[in-house]
Amino acid sequence: MRAVVMRDAGLVVDEVPVPALQPGQVLAEVLACGICGSDLHALAHADRMVEMSELTSEPGGIAPRIMDPNHDVVMGHEFSARVLEVGDNVGNCAPGDVVVSLPIVMDAGGIHAVGYSNDYPGGYAEQLVLSDMLTMKVPNGLHPELAALTEPMAVGLHAVEMSRVTPRHAAVVLGCGPVGLAVIAALRLAGVETIVAADYSTARRTLALTMGATEAVDPSQEGAVDAWRRVDGRRQLVVFEAVGVPGMLDAAMVDAPRASQIVVVGVCMAPDTVRPMIAVGKELNLQFVLGYDPLQFQTTLNRIADGELDVSPMVTGRVDLDGVAEAFTALGDPEAHAKILVVPGATT
Amino acid sequence: MRAVVMRDAGLVVDEVPVPALQPGQVLAEVLACGICGSDLHALAHADRMVEMSELTSEPGGIAPRIMDPNHDVVMGHEFSARVLEVGDNVGNCAPGDVVVSLPIVMDAGGIHAVGYSNDYPGGYAEQLVLSDMLTMKVPNGLHPELAALTEPMAVGLHAVEMSRVTPRHAAVVLGCGPVGLAVIAALRLAGVETIVAADYSTARRTLALTMGATEAVDPSQEGAVDAWRRVDGRRQLVVFEAVGVPGMLDAAMVDAPRASQIVVVGVCMAPDTVRPMIAVGKELNLQFVLGYDPLQFQTTLNRIADGELDVSPMVTGRVDLDGVAEAFTALGDPEAHAKILVVPGATT
Repeated sequence: MRAVVMRDAGLVVDEVPVPALQPGQVLAEVLACGICGSDLHALAHADRMVEMSELTSEPGGIAPRIMDPNHDVVMGHEFSARVLEVGDNVGNCAPGDVVVSLPIVMDAGGIHAVGYSNDYPGGYAEQLVLSDMLTMKVPNGLHPELAALTEPMAVGLHAVEMSRVTPRHAAVVLGCGPVGLAVIAALRLAGVETIVAADYSTARRTLALTMGATEAVDPSQEGAVDAWRRVDGRRQLVVFEAVGVPGMLDAAMVDAPRASQIVVVGVCMAPDTVRPMIAVGKELNLQFVLGYDPLQFQTTLNRIADGELDVSPMVTGRVDLDGVAEAFTALGDPEAHAKILVVPGATT
Repeated sequence: MRAVVMRDAGLVVDEVPVPALQPGQVLAEVLACGICGSDLHALAHADRMVEMSELTSEPGGIAPRIMDPNHDVVMGHEFSARVLEVGDNVGNCAPGDVVVSLPIVMDAGGIHAVGYSNDYPGGYAEQLVLSDMLTMKVPNGLHPELAALTEPMAVGLHAVEMSRVTPRHAAVVLGCGPVGLAVIAALRLAGVETIVAADYSTARRTLALTMGATEAVDPSQEGAVDAWRRVDGRRQLVVFEAVGVPGMLDAAMVDAPRASQIVVVGVCMAPDTVRPMIAVGKELNLQFVLGYDPLQFQTTLNRIADGELDVSPMVTGRVDLDGVAEAFTALGDPEAHAKILVVPGATT
């Protein structure tokens, strides 16, 4: 089949083998797959991603096998797909089902991260192999392109559920890329009434307001915490750091009010310098978060399918497999794009 | 009166004026005052302490005035004292009372940090001025030298109460200086059954076991988290970082198990480099803590006075005012000392 292959730190479209179906697995046709910022990171800093994966593994723990970036990887972990064929011992899916799945696939050899594996292709391909038990049927005839947003939006729900946020809190969201927008949407659905979003991009601030922010500021004009003091200033504040570049954490610590929480959902791959004394002096709480659990994934899918969570404004572009490399470049411009979907079957 | 004065980044014994009593204040004779690691920091890095104090102040918030290290400061904030004289509007203390106090004094001009103020001397002096309403009488005829341990031990209780720790958790304490030892004692009193202490110093490991640790390791031989895996490895872990030097936080993040909490009670005054991706990958929670509240201070005093908390093993030395400068140097050797008390009235 055709797929976009990460090879020699670049992306090429090539023919790759489809893994043979093992018991409990299903073969599916990719309908749509979002391009994630982590994929941009992985392309630029694959070695660092591998190193971090090793540093965060538990002795004796079960973790996905780490990809070897010196061999082919087909990325893409935000996908929807139609089941083509089922293996033995499959009871959840049937051919024809439109599904999403946690981006993990199991086999007798262990577990594999779909999208960061040398053994299983991700969603930047015509087909992929999934674990039947991790798939979820897309309900209500939801468009597969919107269903593909389940994964990134679940990241936002997870971050909010891992935080201290209640409807009595206020929230500041630093950075309105897809992760920040997912956090904003989840905060709104959690009943938070004051949500201050910050981004240098006008387009992203507009998107933030669409997704549920109650105030959106350009940090070059007004700091996000200052804006919170202006519009609220009374409630306990939770700051979500969704930028993930060096310096952001220390800056958030400087701005955060005393005894507040900073939820770090931005993925800063590089070493970073902070002044711990600032956090000590304010008794800050830093909650680092990653991913989601299956219930959060299912909840997010249901919210999108029920119309409770409208993700359509986030989709700013569609490409076929041949357009993926260019889309990676285009995503560097926050004015132009939030989420670009790869639609392998698209006619261009 | 005589006092140990911080002047030109050194310590000298000199005559200083006793502040005139204002309403609500009491004058007291210092009976004992512990030397705190923060005072060693302040002597070496006063400018940094001032800078951090400014960075952590709240807009419009009430905070103690910041000392100007270019003018005289009499340090010492872990004291017990006997009331000599009371000002107007005093209803709590009477002359002759032996008291401890939160190291804060109020007057019409604001609030002042006793021990880090240009206006009010701390406990490295013959006398000090306190706010009547912040003093607590020393009960049960407790020896004033032991009562002076209330302040540092309250830091440990606060850290434990700010943490997630319950009797179902296990704890690791990195660093067995006075702060780490206070944390260990508070953990034991909180019903934590597995408390692994780590320190390079044999003397401090012995003290850690005396104060309530159930295991004490030399990190050059066995990592503290490895030791926890050996003796327990099942309960949720809370790691207390009580060293406070650059590199410790990142090292704790590397060692901490997935989803665990690191309570940062060590005061690292210098900028520090961390790899946020490690904390993201493990979804760590970092709780930075400082100080205590009045209830924690009173609870700690009661525990010491009731015999529930035996602090006597922590006192490893006594000096008079003339011995303070030398004691600051002596505290650099962890084999020799934990807590040195300044006893201004001591006969040497």
